[in-house]
Order: sequence, then structure tokens, then C-alpha cells
Amino acid sequence: MDIDQRLLGYKEVKETLNLAAANYVASLYYLERNFVEGVLLDIGSTTTDIIPFRHGEKLYAKNDLDRMLAGQLLYHGCLRTPLSAIACEINFRGGRIKPASEFFAITADIYNILGEIGNYSCETPDGRDKNHVESMQRVARMLCSDFDELGEDEIVKLCEAFREVQIDSIKYNVKRVMEDFKIDRVFLAGIGDFLGRRVCSRLKVEFKLLKEVTEVYNNLPCLGLAEALNDEGD
Amino acid sequence: MDIDQRLLGYKEVKETLNLAAANYVASLYYLERNFVEGVLLDIGSTTTDIIPFRHGEKLYAKNDLDRMLAGQLLYHGCLRTPLSAIACEINFRGGRIKPASEFFAITADIYNILGEIGNYSCETPDGRDKNHVESMQRVARMLCSDFDELGEDEIVKLCEAFREVQIDSIKYNVKRVMEDFKIDRVFLAGIGDFLGRRVCSRLKVEFKLLKEVTEVYNNLPCLGLAEALNDEGD
Repeated sequence: MDIDQRLLGYKEVKETLNLAAANYVASLYYLERNFVEGVLLDIGSTTTDIIPFRHGEKLYAKNDLDRMLAGQLLYHGCLRTPLSAIACEINFRGGRIKPASEFFAITADIYNILGEIGNYSCETPDGRDKNHVESMQRVARMLCSDFDELGEDEIVKLCEAFREVQIDSIKYNVKRVMEDFKIDRVFLAGIGDFLGRRVCSRLKVEFKLLKEVTEVYNNLPCLGLAEALNDEGD
Repeated sequence: MDIDQRLLGYKEVKETLNLAAANYVASLYYLERNFVEGVLLDIGSTTTDIIPFRHGEKLYAKNDLDRMLAGQLLYHGCLRTPLSAIACEINFRGGRIKPASEFFAITADIYNILGEIGNYSCETPDGRDKNHVESMQRVARMLCSDFDELGEDEIVKLCEAFREVQIDSIKYNVKRVMEDFKIDRVFLAGIGDFLGRRVCSRLKVEFKLLKEVTEVYNNLPCLGLAEALNDEGD
């Protein structure tokens, strides 16, 4: 399937650039036909997709740069993103502080500490354990400190501050995409859907959790492809 | 020399934490005795120190966390800092865009492209060359693009936008430290002094380039130690 949702024969595959994003395009094929219109909010380990869809139209931007400019692709996710790239400044002890510009801790560490995720799949920045104490050590290093210097309460507050910044970024862009295309409902997907719920609740918008709609929601692109093949057979 | 500028005998060295920052403390010893008061703005490859000094007083914060909170330590420099940690959002094509949260390009790339630095000492993120074209490729990746997608003019503008963010951050904190201690002049050091000049000129404050004051300015800590030893001998 190419970027325009056209099914291609093997010999037609010439422009690989048009295929690069085929995964979410196939997902949209499924969503458009089953839910007519909406915004797909798919928060993954590394990136967040905020993709508008309406059956019969192609609303989404078609390459990564245009998607970033349109607020449809955010290059942060709920596992692999370095905290230094989440917040260039963060609230701490009543002031604003710039965290260390190093690969010390990742979003998986804050969501691990805050109890939002269980045993996560990606590597840790320092190659050490994924338990709460090690995660807290890594987060403390973002302020050039260690666990004892800050203590558990302050590290938890710091994690909450990072989470706020990430939620704000997603919220701002979901609102923007919804307004751009006059769409009023959201479909949540991805391992970061716990963030998506908070975003929708703060925006006071209706949302559907895709994993409640279909058990195979992780295979959305395949569902879309199957549906496309089926439609073509009609 | 410990964090309080006391020369220690070998046997007195018990608290290594008090020695960690001895380098800038020794530099201050030299500066206080030769220039009485000022703010040392030392922009290095990885971090930026903004340290107030006044002969006979200890104005500076004494550990990294307190220094960060006081705006006296910024964890970004002019070579090694990932661009994703410099700007969480950047002006581009009239809008705001969040660059990729990856270790694609560093500050050395932007100052290389902008002609501010020559052959720099640190490694590149992708292990490839340090010429302008390779630097531009790396910077383009920050927007999930390549050189051809953006073109040279747009990449240069992007570099200028990153430089603006870094200058603003330094400027804000230099102003803050100068006001906190009612000091009106700056002493510039470090390989990033080209940024320091811009900061001072925008703040309209008097500055002295330490490399014009002494040829061995890279050895400021040693000068400070020598002076301290000399004073003790008096």
C-alpha cells in the first residue's frame, strides 16, 4: 500500500519514499471504513502519531517533515525518549532548571517510577537494571545528583513534572489537529495510551481505546491491508 | 584546593565531594586576586559556567545541583551537546517544530556550519566526517529530513535558530547572576567565547576576554593554584 492508500502490485513498487509510512496508512484504511472520521492518537515507544482521517479524503500530511510541521508527528514516546529531549526546562523546587543534556534517563524510567508501565522492552541508558531504585538513580542524574541527594519524594515530583511537559506537548498538538480538520473524537492506540487518556480527559474530548474495540489492535496495519484486499476483490 | 579555596595537605583530603569542583575554584582564586570582582563566563564543550566572584567573599554555589538551580551551571556547551537537548522547539518555516529526540547532531555541527569553529576535537554522533556537508546531513536529520529535502540555505537558517536558543539561555542566566550579586562585568573563557561575546554585546555589558589578558588562560586553574601556593608562602 502506498502513501495514497493504493494497493500496489510487486512490480509497481518504485518510489520507496511513498512506502515508508505504509504502516499507519494501512491502519487509517481500517479506521476510515469502520469509524468514518476521527483522529488516531498513537503513542508509541519513540514517537507519537496524531493522524486525522475522514473516509474518502486524505487529510494526513505525507512525509515526516510535513507531519512534524503539521503537529501530526511528535518525535517523543513513552519509552525510548531521553529526558533531556522531553524538557529543556523543568519545574523544580519552585524554580526552573535545565536538566543535563546527556543520555542519562529515558521516558521509560519516569513511567516505571510513576507505575504507568510494567517491565518495559527497551534497553536502559546505562545498561543497568529496570527496577524502581535504578530508574530513580538515572532520573536523579538529570539534575547532576544522586538518589540520596534528592530522595524518593523529590524524584517522584520530578518525574511528574516531566510527565506534565510530555502531556502538554501531546495535548497542544491533538487540539491543533482536531481544530485544523474540525474533528471531535479521538482513537487511542499504542503502549502510551495511558498518556492519551489523560490528554483526552484534559481536553474533554470523546475517545475510544482501540484495544477495547478490537483484540488485535496491535495489528491494525494488517487489518487495514486485509480490508483493502477484500475491498479490491469486491 | 577545596570548595572553599583552602589549600589542603595530602592527608587532609577526606571529602572528595568538596574537591570535585576544585578546577573552577582555583580559577576564581586567580581572578579574585587580579580583578577583584566579576562574573566568569566559561563556555566549554559540554557545559557553561557562570560564576560570580568577589575578593574576600564566596559567592558561588557549591555543588552542581545548587549551581544549576542558581543558573551558575548550564549543562550545554558549544561542541558535545545534542541539538535535541538545546531546543525542545525551534522556529522553522514560520512555525514551531519539535526536533527529533535522537542523538543525530551536536552543537559542534551547527558552529562548524556557521563558521564559528574550525576542526573540532569531539567525535561526531554518526562517526562520520566533520566537513560541512556531513554536518549539514546530521542537522537535517533533526527534522527527519536529508540535505536535499531542506537545502543549504534552510539548514543554515536552522543552525542560526539553534544558536539563538543557546545564546538566549546563556544570556538569561548571565543577566540573572549579574543581578543576583550586583556585578557589572564579565570575564570570558572557554572555546565557546565566541558565544560569550554575543551574549555580552546583547546585554550591553563590559567584558574581558581572558585569552587576551593572559596567554596561558587555558591553565587558569594552575595559575590559581600557583598563586594560592605563593600567597601561603608569604
